[in-house]
Amino acid sequence: MKLKDYIEEIPDFPVKGILFKDISPLLANFEAMNYVKTSFIDIIKSYNVDYIAGIDARGFLFSTLLADALGVGSFMIRKEGKLPGKVMTKEYNLEYGTSKMSIKKNINLKNKNTILVDDLLATGGTLKCAEDLINITGGNVLFSLAVIELTNLNGYKNLNSKVYSLVKYDD
Amino acid sequence: MKLKDYIEEIPDFPVKGILFKDISPLLANFEAMNYVKTSFIDIIKSYNVDYIAGIDARGFLFSTLLADALGVGSFMIRKEGKLPGKVMTKEYNLEYGTSKMSIKKNINLKNKNTILVDDLLATGGTLKCAEDLINITGGNVLFSLAVIELTNLNGYKNLNSKVYSLVKYDD
Repeated sequence: MKLKDYIEEIPDFPVKGILFKDISPLLANFEAMNYVKTSFIDIIKSYNVDYIAGIDARGFLFSTLLADALGVGSFMIRKEGKLPGKVMTKEYNLEYGTSKMSIKKNINLKNKNTILVDDLLATGGTLKCAEDLINITGGNVLFSLAVIELTNLNGYKNLNSKVYSLVKYDD
Repeated sequence: MKLKDYIEEIPDFPVKGILFKDISPLLANFEAMNYVKTSFIDIIKSYNVDYIAGIDARGFLFSTLLADALGVGSFMIRKEGKLPGKVMTKEYNLEYGTSKMSIKKNINLKNKNTILVDDLLATGGTLKCAEDLINITGGNVLFSLAVIELTNLNGYKNLNSKVYSLVKYDD
């Protein structure tokens, strides 16, 4: 399965100079998505996992899918203002600007093993923020999963835990 | 399975006067999510489906999960500015304000059968906008799925196609 055949590169989105990797063709194709799911499960299956955390918003496309396949629960790590009730929020830098992410306080992550999932690893700012939020609650991040990795940005160096990706771009 | 046990009601979110229905406890529980998935699949299984469309952003938690279970593809219906490349955009009214939704133009929906999915049906404004976008492209909306329906808002009356929901609130 050549996953790059299912990823469209779109110049100058969301800002000038960024060659955006669009997973829309991947989502539209059952076999390609099934390959992504199976590949992720192969990485996860030897670990004792409690939760899959999806990063707002394209991470949600994978978090419930993986949680269901593993027989575990999931939760959302969302941009500030999107989660209701009591939340914990942290600011971070991303490829083009700054942002804030939140998690809900009513999920008990203490000593629980969480895997983070997003569609893309760029500078790693978002995943690092997600890692920090989980660590602050006493939770453990086993590793992160990304469909796509922009290897020239060395995002993995910003993370405390390992990251696995399925497709690598070095442009 | 009493799904209401897995939905938290949070007052005054995102604006004063709205009693927000939060599906975070549902996501965190494998059995409850599996019940949602199985219930949706039971509704869908007798239809000839080409795509599942997830509504930005919590619809994404269900669209890929259902598409995978059915062996079909999915796509995203997103808030304006979130999808890259050539898109079609339509404005709509929602429970608290107005917004715009977009779909990508490069997915051929002509004569294809799509099922829409979101976490919640309120006034139906978002789902109606999604319906319109798909119909404009020549696609067919079989029906919509929502985990939660706020029945006193009569959202189903705003939709051209049927909507199925798993949990109903009349407060």
